[in-house]
Amino acid sequence: MASEGLTFALRDWEQLLGAEFVQVGSSALQAAETATFATSQRIPAILRPASREQVQECLRIANRFGTPLYPVSSGKNWGYGSRVPPSDGCAILDLSRLDRIVDFSEELGYVTVEPGVTQARLHQFLQERRSGLWMDATGSSPDCSLIGNAMERGFGHTPYGDHFAHVCGLEVVLPTGEVIETGSARFADSLTAAVSRWGVGPSLDGLFSQSNLGLVTRMSIWLMPEPEAFEAFFFRCDLNEGLPALIDALRKLRIHEVLRSSIHIGNDYKVLGGLQQYPWAAVEERVPLSPEHMATFRKDLSFGSWNASGGLYGTRGQVSEAKRLLKKALAGQRGKLKFLSSRTLRMAKRFAEPFRLFTGWDIRRTVELVEPVFGLMRGVPTRHSLASAYWRKRIPVPEDPDPDRDRCGLLWYAPIAPAEGVQVARLAQIATETLLGFKFEPMISITMLTPRTVSCVVAITYDREIMGQDEQAMACYEEFVSRCNREGYYPYRLGIQSMVREKQPDAYSELIKKLKRTLDPSGVLAPGRYDESERAQSVGAGSTQAPQGCSWK
Amino acid sequence: MASEGLTFALRDWEQLLGAEFVQVGSSALQAAETATFATSQRIPAILRPASREQVQECLRIANRFGTPLYPVSSGKNWGYGSRVPPSDGCAILDLSRLDRIVDFSEELGYVTVEPGVTQARLHQFLQERRSGLWMDATGSSPDCSLIGNAMERGFGHTPYGDHFAHVCGLEVVLPTGEVIETGSARFADSLTAAVSRWGVGPSLDGLFSQSNLGLVTRMSIWLMPEPEAFEAFFFRCDLNEGLPALIDALRKLRIHEVLRSSIHIGNDYKVLGGLQQYPWAAVEERVPLSPEHMATFRKDLSFGSWNASGGLYGTRGQVSEAKRLLKKALAGQRGKLKFLSSRTLRMAKRFAEPFRLFTGWDIRRTVELVEPVFGLMRGVPTRHSLASAYWRKRIPVPEDPDPDRDRCGLLWYAPIAPAEGVQVARLAQIATETLLGFKFEPMISITMLTPRTVSCVVAITYDREIMGQDEQAMACYEEFVSRCNREGYYPYRLGIQSMVREKQPDAYSELIKKLKRTLDPSGVLAPGRYDESERAQSVGAGSTQAPQGCSWK
Repeated sequence: MASEGLTFALRDWEQLLGAEFVQVGSSALQAAETATFATSQRIPAILRPASREQVQECLRIANRFGTPLYPVSSGKNWGYGSRVPPSDGCAILDLSRLDRIVDFSEELGYVTVEPGVTQARLHQFLQERRSGLWMDATGSSPDCSLIGNAMERGFGHTPYGDHFAHVCGLEVVLPTGEVIETGSARFADSLTAAVSRWGVGPSLDGLFSQSNLGLVTRMSIWLMPEPEAFEAFFFRCDLNEGLPALIDALRKLRIHEVLRSSIHIGNDYKVLGGLQQYPWAAVEERVPLSPEHMATFRKDLSFGSWNASGGLYGTRGQVSEAKRLLKKALAGQRGKLKFLSSRTLRMAKRFAEPFRLFTGWDIRRTVELVEPVFGLMRGVPTRHSLASAYWRKRIPVPEDPDPDRDRCGLLWYAPIAPAEGVQVARLAQIATETLLGFKFEPMISITMLTPRTVSCVVAITYDREIMGQDEQAMACYEEFVSRCNREGYYPYRLGIQSMVREKQPDAYSELIKKLKRTLDPSGVLAPGRYDESERAQSVGAGSTQAPQGCSWK
Repeated sequence: MASEGLTFALRDWEQLLGAEFVQVGSSALQAAETATFATSQRIPAILRPASREQVQECLRIANRFGTPLYPVSSGKNWGYGSRVPPSDGCAILDLSRLDRIVDFSEELGYVTVEPGVTQARLHQFLQERRSGLWMDATGSSPDCSLIGNAMERGFGHTPYGDHFAHVCGLEVVLPTGEVIETGSARFADSLTAAVSRWGVGPSLDGLFSQSNLGLVTRMSIWLMPEPEAFEAFFFRCDLNEGLPALIDALRKLRIHEVLRSSIHIGNDYKVLGGLQQYPWAAVEERVPLSPEHMATFRKDLSFGSWNASGGLYGTRGQVSEAKRLLKKALAGQRGKLKFLSSRTLRMAKRFAEPFRLFTGWDIRRTVELVEPVFGLMRGVPTRHSLASAYWRKRIPVPEDPDPDRDRCGLLWYAPIAPAEGVQVARLAQIATETLLGFKFEPMISITMLTPRTVSCVVAITYDREIMGQDEQAMACYEEFVSRCNREGYYPYRLGIQSMVREKQPDAYSELIKKLKRTLDPSGVLAPGRYDESERAQSVGAGSTQAPQGCSWK
């Protein structure tokens, strides 16, 4: 990138946005250059446009001077790269000031939002108007952008958990500054802009998800009506070997739509990481936490090798029928099935001790873990899960957690598998072996996102303050990626640590490259992001070992 | 198209496929040039490749000589253009010999097919292996291609009714002859090629639906497991004015997922057209069939102004709960709600007369109409609905109906509306007024395809043998399109009669054009099909009035 071009671009951006909204101070830039793993990409500026028109103009300026931009909505893409662009020298285009809720329908169940609208904001909006609609929330921060998450194809916990499958009518600014709307929204006066997906002719939405082909400045997302009844279920699977049978049983319920939402299954490490930080003292400072130690924690804290949870939604009759079927399906398995309603949870919190006496179930720690999960199943965002990024840290989890700032080490890789016990168990085994081998705890969360697939989100969690850990974690990550891909497990999403790959060009990558060249001839929009171009460069871990990425065909 | 180029291309195509599979005889070509409305496009040849490799080579030859190809899978796109290309001079690339069922999984519920696999073929395949899986069938012919229908974003009657939402892993031959696979299928060894949709990076599936950007030669489509219990419901809404309340009540059940499948609502004309041909004698040869006459038929044949039907799927408990909720939701409405199980239907057929005495319900005509609909709700393809294309014909419906051959007049236009009573009723009113105004019967089928939208399929049905009817029908069609669009109702799909539009170019059409030029620089794949290029030409009704198409923004 020519620094002369940058000077001119900065001048024009400042003129457009006002100096206040073009950050070039070193502390702001340094913060933005920091992810939860080692990166070396430099960021020359952060632009904060206030409107879609300003976004368009920012891109036109970028095209004029060949100065690349990297859009972020909320920039909370922790574990996948935070705000750090995959390529060096990109100015950040921070869309958080575009934060309007543009449209809303209680009857049709949708809301139309801009990129700055966060989970917390939408939740508050619905609460304020006593809406009978629930949003779907991810376990990530309440401050995450809805658009950012949906466009990365993130997921949550309700029947609307597959976010990208529940959005439509995208307003997209193309890399050259033009704006289009997708689906029915293409027609200015269409009555179905916010409710119908495909439109007429080729459907373009997919093109702008996990993509650097355009930048979404508006989206409609569907909201589910609050059901008459809701109960959560929790299944504690005692044996590690119980996973395949559990998956197969749940798949049958999922494919028969008895279970209508994503089911989440955490392994023991994942659960412990949600309950507390690393038990340094108890294990005499040793890492990783051994399977033997883990067994003790499972016993002491009453959780299983695998811990499934999910919601039952419907009328009272439907929920009670689902409970019956769930009990029947899990009857033969070694473990405990519990149901939890809002009423029970409220009572449990108030009467934890008498409850223990009455039911024999000690629920205090459980409530602590369960409450945010319970909320997520009802579309309530939570700050809780962010705490697990501090697992290996020596400082306590701060009031206002910020894994980038606090040098939490976190690398996520999320391969998908068919919803078959044997295949999922094999993937879990690869994760467990690989991470323990590199002295990290295998925190595994298996999401049965659709009736036919699971997403297996694996976290490598460490302390960036400890010398050598960045390198160790990246080496572990690469080994894990490579083992997964070798056995046919590919990810649902990538972090910037995987976005440049050594691979033979094939017809598919040629097509993606062609599309990129067509839509972004100057290559100014998020170069390197889900990019198949050889020219996407500069991803790396500074002077540490460069990531190899996926060994894709 | 240079005819010299065509000569060379034909030579190479023949060499590739063998003379047997390159049809140039006038009778075959004339048949292929015939749709269910007036067209003037000429077809120089029909190519019938046997493999994906041959398809690729056919396209390479087309590129070499600039001779365009128009792919059809089964060519049964009646009412939307049959096999006729939107542009003049395209050779037909008939994919029906690619007819393998490539993969199948009973556990994961999917089948992987080639374009020649028809509804009937898949149904037979599932029957033969006593599969516990149901396909979703459209009401069109059993001989329709699954890929053809899904790529046009067609729909059916089960919970998997939105076909394009239930497919993945497309194998696509690009216009220049390369082949790609989409989603996870991109990775040769992926375990989730047939079960996961999005893949990594931009999702491309949408690009190849309703499109001339590529040609799908393989697709996985999901199949639903047979539920423990199934019942159909039928609601006869007596008053035309009852439609808005019916829509609103059903939307609530749909959005709460009490009703999990598409609900179909036919008006009186639609129902009558399914029961018999035009009652020429009864109305003394006059057209259209007046609302007054219609009232008599409704009374005599026991159907309503609006006739809703849908399936209830699940365990016995779930189905019985859904029945309860449906009864409750429709309680205040003027009409009759009936449920029908397989057992009742079998009994009804055997004991129609005693049944009438016992229940007071005369079911003989009803069974006739209901049985194919009942089957469709269980994924059984039917030839029945094709008969309605013969509505105005003087000949009886033949054993082997072929609307093109028999000069049935049929023009379909299918605008979508939000699932709100007022909006749907307005659309129905526009259809009714417009069609009656042009002396055609407004046959309207409203499909509540998703919880938030309806597709309103309107048929203009006539007899092409009658002088002037082609022109009259097209004029009616254009007026209907134009009124719909003026009020914000846009279609879910287009026929070739609408594919060229008079419109101002905008950023959206520019983008589609750019994509077309990038992927198909020689413009050889289905020029004019969902095409935004001005150069797409030659759509028309011969010497009759040329269609204006949609007046899109």
